[in-house]
Amino acid sequence: MELYPASRLELVRNSVRAVGLDAVLLTPGPDLRYVTGYDAKQLERLTCLVLPAQGDPALFVPRLELPAAQASPAGSLGLEIVPWEETADPFAMVAGLLGNVSAVGLSDRMWALFVLRFRDVLPSARLALASGALRPLRIRKTPAEVAALREAGEAIDRVHAQVPGWLRAGRTEREVGADITEAILASGHATVDFVIVASGPNAASPHHEVSDRVLEPGDAVVVDIGGAMPSGYCSDSTRTYAIGEPPADFTAYYKVLYDAQEAACAAVRPGVTAESVDAAAREPITAAGYGGAFFHRTGHGIGLESHEDPYIVAGNVEMLEPGMAFSVEPGIYPGPHGARIEDIVVCTADGYERLNNTPRELLVVG
Amino acid sequence: MELYPASRLELVRNSVRAVGLDAVLLTPGPDLRYVTGYDAKQLERLTCLVLPAQGDPALFVPRLELPAAQASPAGSLGLEIVPWEETADPFAMVAGLLGNVSAVGLSDRMWALFVLRFRDVLPSARLALASGALRPLRIRKTPAEVAALREAGEAIDRVHAQVPGWLRAGRTEREVGADITEAILASGHATVDFVIVASGPNAASPHHEVSDRVLEPGDAVVVDIGGAMPSGYCSDSTRTYAIGEPPADFTAYYKVLYDAQEAACAAVRPGVTAESVDAAAREPITAAGYGGAFFHRTGHGIGLESHEDPYIVAGNVEMLEPGMAFSVEPGIYPGPHGARIEDIVVCTADGYERLNNTPRELLVVG
Repeated sequence: MELYPASRLELVRNSVRAVGLDAVLLTPGPDLRYVTGYDAKQLERLTCLVLPAQGDPALFVPRLELPAAQASPAGSLGLEIVPWEETADPFAMVAGLLGNVSAVGLSDRMWALFVLRFRDVLPSARLALASGALRPLRIRKTPAEVAALREAGEAIDRVHAQVPGWLRAGRTEREVGADITEAILASGHATVDFVIVASGPNAASPHHEVSDRVLEPGDAVVVDIGGAMPSGYCSDSTRTYAIGEPPADFTAYYKVLYDAQEAACAAVRPGVTAESVDAAAREPITAAGYGGAFFHRTGHGIGLESHEDPYIVAGNVEMLEPGMAFSVEPGIYPGPHGARIEDIVVCTADGYERLNNTPRELLVVG
Repeated sequence: MELYPASRLELVRNSVRAVGLDAVLLTPGPDLRYVTGYDAKQLERLTCLVLPAQGDPALFVPRLELPAAQASPAGSLGLEIVPWEETADPFAMVAGLLGNVSAVGLSDRMWALFVLRFRDVLPSARLALASGALRPLRIRKTPAEVAALREAGEAIDRVHAQVPGWLRAGRTEREVGADITEAILASGHATVDFVIVASGPNAASPHHEVSDRVLEPGDAVVVDIGGAMPSGYCSDSTRTYAIGEPPADFTAYYKVLYDAQEAACAAVRPGVTAESVDAAAREPITAAGYGGAFFHRTGHGIGLESHEDPYIVAGNVEMLEPGMAFSVEPGIYPGPHGARIEDIVVCTADGYERLNNTPRELLVVG
């Protein structure tokens, strides 16, 4: 049960063939890591896996990165690693290997800097996204991937368990954020992806990060945090705290939110659509009169990216399948305060598993 | 002397016109930040500044990001901020604003995910890189930008000053790297961009990061570290340390390296070519018989990106001008050890200023 099995290269190649591409070109980022395990740095020097539908794959790397590439999991896949020298043209080298191709998929996060170079050296090729081939694989997590997400969930839960100790009137959001940043790394994450400490009126802005606002008694504080583990897999969990007694209307809609988040999780099982989970969260919020104050989708997939397919949003009629992992994070933001509750949930054979398990009840601190 | 002056929007627009583009489209990253000061998150939801050569610019943001965009420096530029709703098509909105255009520049780091969407909604437009317009501006740092780089240099110098205390036989590279990571944040950086602790044979691989190798007496250790400050501007400095007495051949070539780095810095002044600085570093190393062991360019520009123009490399005949900022970082890697010395240097009116100033002599610790 390997996280980055050597067999994946062949699975991806079959998928490349199935979607009618001649090859995919994967630069550093989640696609390259998914296929090879290689956590390559995004640099102005081209690193690129060329994975043709027919013929042998090759990993082009700047000479400087050769030892890192060889030492990475990609070094044990039996694929050719081609170093290019500081004054060479690696785009021409890739084009030479590909020959005459008519459709090539590019990793979704490839920089325009590279996209336009490939366009120029592959004039006969239609450029598409590699996700056409990769999405069907990446969206269904293997048991090893679910285990990696579970480990990430446990790590971020350990951080949330400490948050009440850092929240008190008189401290700034930024100070609390610094404590959380340190704790995310101490909990075993390799990187900190985001730290939202949104207090008082800032809690009504879902993507507020941190500010110099001083926490006050009566504040609700939305704490939405996540990072990536050394495995590459991400965490993401939100809890809302109150500093002392919150306003009465806040307490009322927090209960609505709690029930909505429960209902959305309970709606997760194979065969239901992504949008039906969104509807399950939205319905009780709308029924309680807060529909206009819940103005974002209910969730996003998670894996090697903190936002990836499937998106839990109106209009997404894709059916859930076992192994799909995503956030369930309704929010209510009527102002001058707001609240959100978020867990990562995995669709299982007959229902769901929550990967975040700290208490979801409103926690009054300070 | 503002770091992100409101006047920049007009400067960039003039440059867009001068290079013959109808508009540039800037998604989150260093180009967008340079033009607007907005440190937007890279998300699957499109954030994009549309800056036409004629007509008004507009910043398209997902509804969720509207408060962040408004609160950012972009909110005070008097440009229209257009939020798009969760189920809207922002690419069609951008195309509608642009109308019939024939040449559009995309920010270099724009994801392929967006590049191909813009290709599809702008079928008549030739897609180019926005750097055609932005490079001439970004490559010449203003006094405020140099001050921001100086602040970053001082911060990373404070970290290097502590490194000797963390290097001792029996510790792993990873343990030392964790101390450094923490110190980079404590020194005032907002992010840690890279932490290289390359000991013993690993020091012969310039882009080695950290491993579980245990430091041993006699090791040379290359420590190459950097991050980005809250201003957005980056630091990057390398020092080589020895744990106890290093091998005699190491000591010999370290002296060559020291002199080469001095010579390359001394070669920096307006009107000399970038490649001549590379040559100034390479010549003494080659003369001493280590030419083959110095197999990377001498340096890279630095600013809002840790690697940007100008590159200090053979073949780059661009002339240095005041305000250009770049690393001078020759290395010698004959194996089974290696060394590198790196400072950020700014070209001044009549010479150069080093932004890193910790001792460059070989520091024997432990």
